[in-house]
Parts: sequence; structure tokens; C-alpha cells
Amino acid sequence: MSAGRPTIIDVARDAGVSPATAGRVLGGYGTPAPELVRRVRDSARRLGYRANDVARSIVTGLTRVIGVVVSDIENPFFARAVSGISDRARAAGYEMLLVSTGLDLARERSAVEALMAKRVDGMIVASASVSEGAHLRRVREAGVPLVLLDRRNDGAGAVDAVLLDNRAAAHRAVNHLLDKGHRAVAVVTSAVADERPTGRRRKALAQFPSSLRFAGYLDALEEAGIAGAPEWVLRCDDADAAAERVRDLLTARPDVTAIFATTNVMAGAAFRAIMDSDRRCPEDVSLLGFDDHEWSTLVRPQLSVVAQPAYDLGAAAGTVLLGRLSGRESASAPSETILQSSLIVRGSVAPPPA
Amino acid sequence: MSAGRPTIIDVARDAGVSPATAGRVLGGYGTPAPELVRRVRDSARRLGYRANDVARSIVTGLTRVIGVVVSDIENPFFARAVSGISDRARAAGYEMLLVSTGLDLARERSAVEALMAKRVDGMIVASASVSEGAHLRRVREAGVPLVLLDRRNDGAGAVDAVLLDNRAAAHRAVNHLLDKGHRAVAVVTSAVADERPTGRRRKALAQFPSSLRFAGYLDALEEAGIAGAPEWVLRCDDADAAAERVRDLLTARPDVTAIFATTNVMAGAAFRAIMDSDRRCPEDVSLLGFDDHEWSTLVRPQLSVVAQPAYDLGAAAGTVLLGRLSGRESASAPSETILQSSLIVRGSVAPPPA
Repeated sequence: MSAGRPTIIDVARDAGVSPATAGRVLGGYGTPAPELVRRVRDSARRLGYRANDVARSIVTGLTRVIGVVVSDIENPFFARAVSGISDRARAAGYEMLLVSTGLDLARERSAVEALMAKRVDGMIVASASVSEGAHLRRVREAGVPLVLLDRRNDGAGAVDAVLLDNRAAAHRAVNHLLDKGHRAVAVVTSAVADERPTGRRRKALAQFPSSLRFAGYLDALEEAGIAGAPEWVLRCDDADAAAERVRDLLTARPDVTAIFATTNVMAGAAFRAIMDSDRRCPEDVSLLGFDDHEWSTLVRPQLSVVAQPAYDLGAAAGTVLLGRLSGRESASAPSETILQSSLIVRGSVAPPPA
Repeated sequence: MSAGRPTIIDVARDAGVSPATAGRVLGGYGTPAPELVRRVRDSARRLGYRANDVARSIVTGLTRVIGVVVSDIENPFFARAVSGISDRARAAGYEMLLVSTGLDLARERSAVEALMAKRVDGMIVASASVSEGAHLRRVREAGVPLVLLDRRNDGAGAVDAVLLDNRAAAHRAVNHLLDKGHRAVAVVTSAVADERPTGRRRKALAQFPSSLRFAGYLDALEEAGIAGAPEWVLRCDDADAAAERVRDLLTARPDVTAIFATTNVMAGAAFRAIMDSDRRCPEDVSLLGFDDHEWSTLVRPQLSVVAQPAYDLGAAAGTVLLGRLSGRESASAPSETILQSSLIVRGSVAPPPA
């Protein structure tokens, strides 16, 4: 629309045809005569005419843009997931409007509103909430396909979701520690804003990944007949708080011989705290992290982790959304895709000291 | 445009006014009577009408979307820079169409073409090339403001750019090694696709950041009167190649007592190679990296690095672009903004062994 961009009117004038004919040729519909096709294409090339997707979207009702809302693009997990979405979207001819909300629900609401105003064809959202979802329900009510990524949302209603097997993965991870002979296993996890009950009775409620991993930790202890202790549970707001809590734990509870961290940030903090203490890893205390990032193999000992298929998760969300947009899956019931994590055994877990 | 979304026609009908009047009220232009304003707004609220930015953009010629093209969103440097762009854009009411090209120039060309078709108001590009820029020149010729991020591009012509002080930063970094007493300093750097001469005579040509850092390394050696040796220069395609080359160097050249890595990936590879060798860091060999990522403080010794202000770089690019879009800066000559890196001294650099 800027000055200097030739319009379809300019092309029509140059080619000596009507704007309607130029539109048919350049839009690829109707059956204009071959001679007209040649003239219009020549003029378009000479003038440097570019199709105007904005104008086209008014006609077709489609923008060929999907909206993607994540909490933090600087989190390597989301960066990798967004790569997966982006590759799928581009292969199908879609561009991506990306919004990173800083895990702020108000910002997410306004982002979703803005994406609706931009008339995105569909949306993938990793919500900052697992309960407040009126803004997501409105997306669906407007007929715009929506796929939830990484966490469910009870307020959104029945909707497609692509998730990790968080609870089972954590259960397996803690079993790995128990199999090595540990009994007193601490957990470092995030203190999430709208935490919800994790007990068996409330399992139908949507949960944050870190809450589900905490639940998996409890499952493993319970299954092994270990009562646990409140001091083993460190809920922390950020990395610095986590490092301090782990340092205190290492001093106050020498009986604790293993630590499970439910996020990459918490694992880094716990690793740092162990390095700064007089206890050695893994001889005195084992550490098992979540997420396999660059640093896992650079530190000594190398970190054993639960690895998430972040790229595949994004790609799967893209595939589900594109299925809805293509019409192939437009009528089927909401689906839930659960991807499996894997346990990568390296050097940070050993049997407890004798 | 989907079924179920009320249009301005629906609002006008409900309010008992003409579509033109409804348009004036909801678009905020003209001077409709207060009574009409009230009726239209009530109807819009009751029907759940949402402004259609797509339709509005046909009228205004503005989409309030900027296009952002980076080579790899999974690179934490770009993820952080994109955060800076995104925060600035959103504060000014813009959304962001993001494309990650995998440092593939063909993919970049088609991405830029697609963003032009989407009629983005402006574009920020970290190009996969420093010489091929015909696609970028076309953006400017179409009257769309363009800001280059992280690297210049000779083919783009005179254009705004936001860059780091790469050459000076590397010069300072290598001086830090020389000040500690090192003479034989190796460099690990990427083998970039369209590498260009780095000598003094050709300094006017645009260069990739890693090439500029290599040039800064050469500057420092030359200034110190050190002739250097071809064996000190390790140009590597990827992390695995770099780790292998550094391992070979540590064996073949025991006289080399310090290594400068021009990227975070190369620093990680060099760190790994030193860990796997029988030489200790920093007692036997010092290592200085580029980019301050999470792992820098998790490894032992902690890594000394040149830290880039990645967020500020993105934010500055956003500010320059928004200045062009606001019209405030629309007529002024292309600007070049150079941000400073800083040297963070930790434990991986020590004097050479006696």
C-alpha cells in the first residue's frame, strides 16, 4: 500500500486490460485467454508487481497466518518448540505471528485479542494459566482453530492439545534414583502462580508441567512406600532462591542423598549449589534434571536428565492445527497428543554413599 | 471473516444506523452525534464485535505488523534479541511476523518476499549473507523501512543497521590474554559461507560477526608484534569439528597456552576438548569465549567471556524501525548504531605455565 508499490490497477493499465482481467490472471482463477495471460504477466514482471495478501485475504477470508503465543521465547524449550511450529507452518505456506508474554496472563489476553483482530487463521497457545481461559474459549467460539501447547487449560473448554507425558516422565526419573538405592530424595520445583491440587482426587484438573512433574515425584515415592518429608520439597520462585534453598538443604539434611529438579532452571541452580557446597556430585549427592540443554554435557559430572522432544512437540502442534485448517480434520472431536520424554543417563547419578 | 464473527454491517443493523455511521464510530473518525455513538457502541458490545485490522489496513495502508527475519531462533543470542524487538514493537502497538531461516539465503529471500506480500509496515533482518542483498534492496525500493541486525549487507545499499563492536571487542579480549603473558594464542572460529577478506585494505566490505572477531584477533596480535602461525587458526564448520581440531591442537602444539573462541558454540566445543585432554584449564591452557550463556557459570572453571548485549541490540533495532514508521525519522539519512560488548573475567584465564 506504500507509495511506489504498483497495484493491480497499474498492471491492468500497462497491459491494456480491465482490472478484473488482471485480477483473474494474477489470482489464478477464471479462464482468461492465453494472450491476455501473457500480457498481464509481462506487465506485472516489468512493473515489479507483488501479490497483495492483505487485499486477497479480504476476498478469501484467509490470511495464511497463524498466531503463536508462548510464555518466554528465551526459554530454549519454547525456542525449539517454535522452530518446530515454524517449519511445519512454512512447509504449508503459512507465516507465523509470534508473541512472547512473559508468563503474564493480562499480556496473553491482549495478545490473543490482537491476533484475532489480525484475523489469524488459527492459533497455538502455551497459556500462562491452566484455569483462566475465557479468552481462549472466545477464540474457539469465533470459529478459529486453537491448539494448546505444553499445558491444558480448563477454561478453554474441549480443545486440541499437544502435551508431554510430564507426570509419567517424572515418575520414571525418580524411580531411576530409587533403583540406585536412594530413599531420601528431595525435589526442587517452581512455585507457579495458580498452583492446583496435585492429589489423586483432583487429577482431572489441568496442571502446569512442573506441577505434573511434582505429582510424578509423589507417585514414585508412594509406590516405593516412602513417606517423604516436608523438608524434601523445595518450591522456589527463581534460580537464586532455588540455589539458596538447596544450599540450606545440603547443610541441614545430610540424610538427603539425591535431588530431582523439575525444570532446567532449577537443575542449574541445584547444580551450582552442590558445586559451592562441600558435598561432591555424584559421590555424596546425586542430581537428576529436566530438559537437556547445552550445559548438561559441559559440566562435570555431566548431568543426567529427562529430555523433552521440544521440536517434535511444536511440530505436532503445527500438524494438528494445519489439519484443522485444511478442512481434513475440521469436524472431528478435539484430540490430545501426548509425546514421550526420555531419560538420558550420564554422570550425575550414582548410588548413595555407604 | 469466519462464520460467527459479527461484521460492521451487523452492528449497523442492530443499532439502526448506516454502515458508514457505524464505521465512523468504531473507527474513531468523523464526528457522529453522541446519541449515535452510544447506540453503535452498545450494539458492538452486545454482539461481540471486534475491529477487523485486515479490513482497516486496506483503508489505512498500514498493517501494524513488522517482519523479523533471523537465521536461527534457537540460538539464544537471537532469541534474546527477538525479545528486545518484540517488547519495543508491542509497546508501540505492533505485532511481529517472525521467520527463522536456518542461515539459508534462499529461504531468507522467500521469507522477505512473503513478508512483503503480507504488507508488513517495516522489517528487521539478520541476513544470511553480507554481500547478496538484492532482495533487501527491493524492500527499500518498495518504500518499506528496513533495519539490518547484527551484520551489514553490501547488496542492500545504504540502510539502517544495529551492530555490535565485534572487531574492537575481540581486540580487547585478545589483549586480555596477552596482558596475562600469553604469546601463542589460538583462535577457534566458524567457517562462514561467504567469507570475505579481513585485511586492513578491505575493511570497507561488510563482514559476518565471526569474521570481524577474527579480524580483531589479528589486530591484537599485530599490535603486540606477534607474527602468529597458521596452526593457531582453527576454522570449523560445527561444534564437533571444533572439538576435534582443538583436541589435535592441544596434542600437537604444547606451546599454545591460550585459546580465543569467537562464538558460544566454538567456546563450548573448545571447553569440552580441554576437559577431555590431559591439560588443565586455566593452569595449562586458558580459554576466553564469546557470548555469556547459562553454562558459562555452571562449568568449573567458570568461563571468562565477551558478553553481548543481545536484548539491547534487538530493542535498539526496534527503536530505529519505529522511528522510521512514526515518521519522526522518515526522512533522515540511514543510521548505524554500534553497541558495546563487555569483557567478563571469571576463572578460565590465568597466566601461562612458567
